[in-house]
Amino acid sequence: MAMDKLNLDDYIRKVPDFPKEGVLFYDITSILTTPAAFTYCIDRMAEIYSDKQIDAVAAIEARGFLFAAPFACRAGLPLILVRKRGKLPRRTLRKAFELEYTSAEIEIHPDDVKKNSRILLVDDLIATGGTLSAARELIAEAGAETPEIFGVVGLPFLNYEKKLKNATVTTLIEYDSE
Amino acid sequence: MAMDKLNLDDYIRKVPDFPKEGVLFYDITSILTTPAAFTYCIDRMAEIYSDKQIDAVAAIEARGFLFAAPFACRAGLPLILVRKRGKLPRRTLRKAFELEYTSAEIEIHPDDVKKNSRILLVDDLIATGGTLSAARELIAEAGAETPEIFGVVGLPFLNYEKKLKNATVTTLIEYDSE
Repeated sequence: MAMDKLNLDDYIRKVPDFPKEGVLFYDITSILTTPAAFTYCIDRMAEIYSDKQIDAVAAIEARGFLFAAPFACRAGLPLILVRKRGKLPRRTLRKAFELEYTSAEIEIHPDDVKKNSRILLVDDLIATGGTLSAARELIAEAGAETPEIFGVVGLPFLNYEKKLKNATVTTLIEYDSE
Repeated sequence: MAMDKLNLDDYIRKVPDFPKEGVLFYDITSILTTPAAFTYCIDRMAEIYSDKQIDAVAAIEARGFLFAAPFACRAGLPLILVRKRGKLPRRTLRKAFELEYTSAEIEIHPDDVKKNSRILLVDDLIATGGTLSAARELIAEAGAETPEIFGVVGLPFLNYEKKLKNATVTTLIEYDSE
């Protein structure tokens, strides 16, 4: 399959009423089970960030790990985890925030973050931008910047741009409304 | 840094009393933040499984994703997620099981599993083998085999071999006791 012919939409399943009624869930597991589609995503990330000054990659638990890890590994960049509360074993910085359907707390190990470094934040899907915005605050608190944000899927109608100011948000595919 | 000179133990932090008192936690986040160490792990996986008949990779949430995803991407193999209850949007198979410190339920999408395929199961650390054993049962229920199991770290004193019969368990580093 030629990479430039791949239509990513073919590999994103739309699951109605998940995780709750009235929500249309964009399921990226079909990307993962299709090597050509998964490789396409990582190749595109490599291409997009090849000429950006990026010092490290930060991955949002858990689906963000799936795209951030192969990219960081290929690019030879340090990978920093942004995890749910209670998962990171050393000293953490923590932040509570509101999600689309619930609230949550995330943490980082501040000693994983190099002062004044430029960090690419990665998740699978960008919706309201709430998790990413909280992650940016944690990383800022640890002394670094997050000028670049990547998501495989973007839902701009949920207005993530508003929450993610002063960053370049890049997605591979966008959906306009539910 | 020459790959064959890398001592993985240098990148695994031992954190006492996490997640609870008396437990020594083997923290792999320092592997992730050190590109040479992370690449070493994925290179070793590629080497170990290059001559095995593997049709797909199954990753245990969440730290298993960090090693399974780069390997699956590099090897061009489908990646199947083994997730905690309630995270997978389509029809799932589910299994409850006992963990070292608690109990849990995991799920897979059975339609991600190709009948009669040979699946490599990946996690970051293998302790009692409880999660992996439950994952194997789910994959068997979906019609496939799990002849190979990989963990970066192995704790054989917790007797995972007992729970993971009829599989070849490979780890990059083992710790003998707490």
